[in-house]
Amino acid sequence: MKIAVSIGDLNGIGIELALRSHEEIRHWCQPHYMISDTMLEQAANLLNLPIPDDFKTYAVGETFTIEPGHVTKQSGAYSYASFLAAIDLAKKQQVDAITTLPIHKKAWELTGVPYKGHTDALADIFDKEAIMMIGTPKLFTALFTHHIPLKEVASKIELQPLSDFLITLYHEIKEEKIAVLALNPHAGDDGVLGDEEEIIKAAIKIANDTLLDEVFIGPLVPDTAFTPHMRKHLHYYVCMYHDQGLIPVKTLYFDEGINVSLNLPIIRTSVDHGTAFDKAYQNKPVSNLSYLNAIKEAVRLSEKKKLFKI
Amino acid sequence: MKIAVSIGDLNGIGIELALRSHEEIRHWCQPHYMISDTMLEQAANLLNLPIPDDFKTYAVGETFTIEPGHVTKQSGAYSYASFLAAIDLAKKQQVDAITTLPIHKKAWELTGVPYKGHTDALADIFDKEAIMMIGTPKLFTALFTHHIPLKEVASKIELQPLSDFLITLYHEIKEEKIAVLALNPHAGDDGVLGDEEEIIKAAIKIANDTLLDEVFIGPLVPDTAFTPHMRKHLHYYVCMYHDQGLIPVKTLYFDEGINVSLNLPIIRTSVDHGTAFDKAYQNKPVSNLSYLNAIKEAVRLSEKKKLFKI
Repeated sequence: MKIAVSIGDLNGIGIELALRSHEEIRHWCQPHYMISDTMLEQAANLLNLPIPDDFKTYAVGETFTIEPGHVTKQSGAYSYASFLAAIDLAKKQQVDAITTLPIHKKAWELTGVPYKGHTDALADIFDKEAIMMIGTPKLFTALFTHHIPLKEVASKIELQPLSDFLITLYHEIKEEKIAVLALNPHAGDDGVLGDEEEIIKAAIKIANDTLLDEVFIGPLVPDTAFTPHMRKHLHYYVCMYHDQGLIPVKTLYFDEGINVSLNLPIIRTSVDHGTAFDKAYQNKPVSNLSYLNAIKEAVRLSEKKKLFKI
Repeated sequence: MKIAVSIGDLNGIGIELALRSHEEIRHWCQPHYMISDTMLEQAANLLNLPIPDDFKTYAVGETFTIEPGHVTKQSGAYSYASFLAAIDLAKKQQVDAITTLPIHKKAWELTGVPYKGHTDALADIFDKEAIMMIGTPKLFTALFTHHIPLKEVASKIELQPLSDFLITLYHEIKEEKIAVLALNPHAGDDGVLGDEEEIIKAAIKIANDTLLDEVFIGPLVPDTAFTPHMRKHLHYYVCMYHDQGLIPVKTLYFDEGINVSLNLPIIRTSVDHGTAFDKAYQNKPVSNLSYLNAIKEAVRLSEKKKLFKI
């Protein structure tokens, strides 16, 4: 499997993660790093790290001087070029998926990139809102609604959009068992604490009927959905709103979390942390768990896609 | 410290928890068990457990025949009598707090008790809505709103009720540092994802100004509020809605959770599980972590109350 790694902001920790993790990652896939040899050598020298022999690079972006821990226009332009190159390879099917290392939003702004971040850019480039799934291979939550005020959530729980979401999600991740959470406390307690659960129940039925299989189970009582006992049997959850999905993931797996964009023409996974300017090029211990999980999930989703195409 | 233990439904696991945990609990407090000698002997015989010498009992309720794992009118009546006796001792200040073992709602209904559960009964008896706090000594969440539909939550975030809630909570638990969560994803992202955070911020200021101390911090971004790093420093959280508080507690500490009723004339803690009829009187392993924590917190809150009264 070939994965394009968009290198992120070179004034941050992305390149260090890539260099230090290569030995492990090369056993899972062929990583294609969206960084030129000149920039790679500069970064490796600053980090005092050797460049692995099979570290496959690409000539992207304009050469510039790395300024560790600083927000610069040049670094913003480079991380954007690296990201676009990764997307381009995926569109041309020269790679199976892309994994993005963290960019700095301010640096993108400085250099005139018209997007607030990766997700924003992907939505515009593909003219399509991605399904946002976050978590780790142990627990993933796909968000039916995400960046909206809490008070607007209930009115978004509608039959057709929700059943469509469930069916699309299934086709994207091909999991046999996916939990669907209720919206209200105690799953509404038979309507006493809200009645959106009726819509959720109906959407689950439509999705299962369409898929001819009992893929989706629920609506589950939200507060007991993530107990250790439940997590033994369930790894994929559909959540009705942002914090319903993000609180359990970040509470349990803060360092390991990743971000997956589904329902786009390309597969994209991402680390769930920032550029960590305070730790960049300082030989400080930096966790690569999120990065490793992002690569792992890119490989796994690519494999599923190939498997189901045959 | 003296704690009245309301014995719960005698067809369930309550009495087994009480008997098996007495040896540990007696080092922390003097437990007063709201069960008659006759009923205690019957239960102990069925369980084949010895009755500890210093197991202090009370003549409450009507003697009946225990039917392990069954919902009976007699057992419902007995658990209600035991609960009322505990409240009575606390009202007369013959004990410092009460801890309740699980009752069965259906059994209460059968015997004509006009309440759905302990919380319901307490609200009516004291003509006061309690503050509901759930968790373990490692993490407690106090709920500003609880049993209402999610769509009604945002409109309840009002300045006066919230600042009053914070001040009352402080006086009840006397903690130096209490976190207050935001309502919206990313704490509203400067108003882009909702603006209730402005009200929360203002309520925190009023509370801190009133208490002449920076007790309350926030509004915190909800999804990162319960990461291991945050929990190192924070143990008490105010949550805006039911699942915001219950998801992290049940995800992390399912077996150990307890329920605390604050802002009542008496201190009351409770286990956070049911009667477990499927395990009652069967010598099956039953976790007593929730019960131990309920007793511990009753003692701790009683001590704080005494300390601050002097």
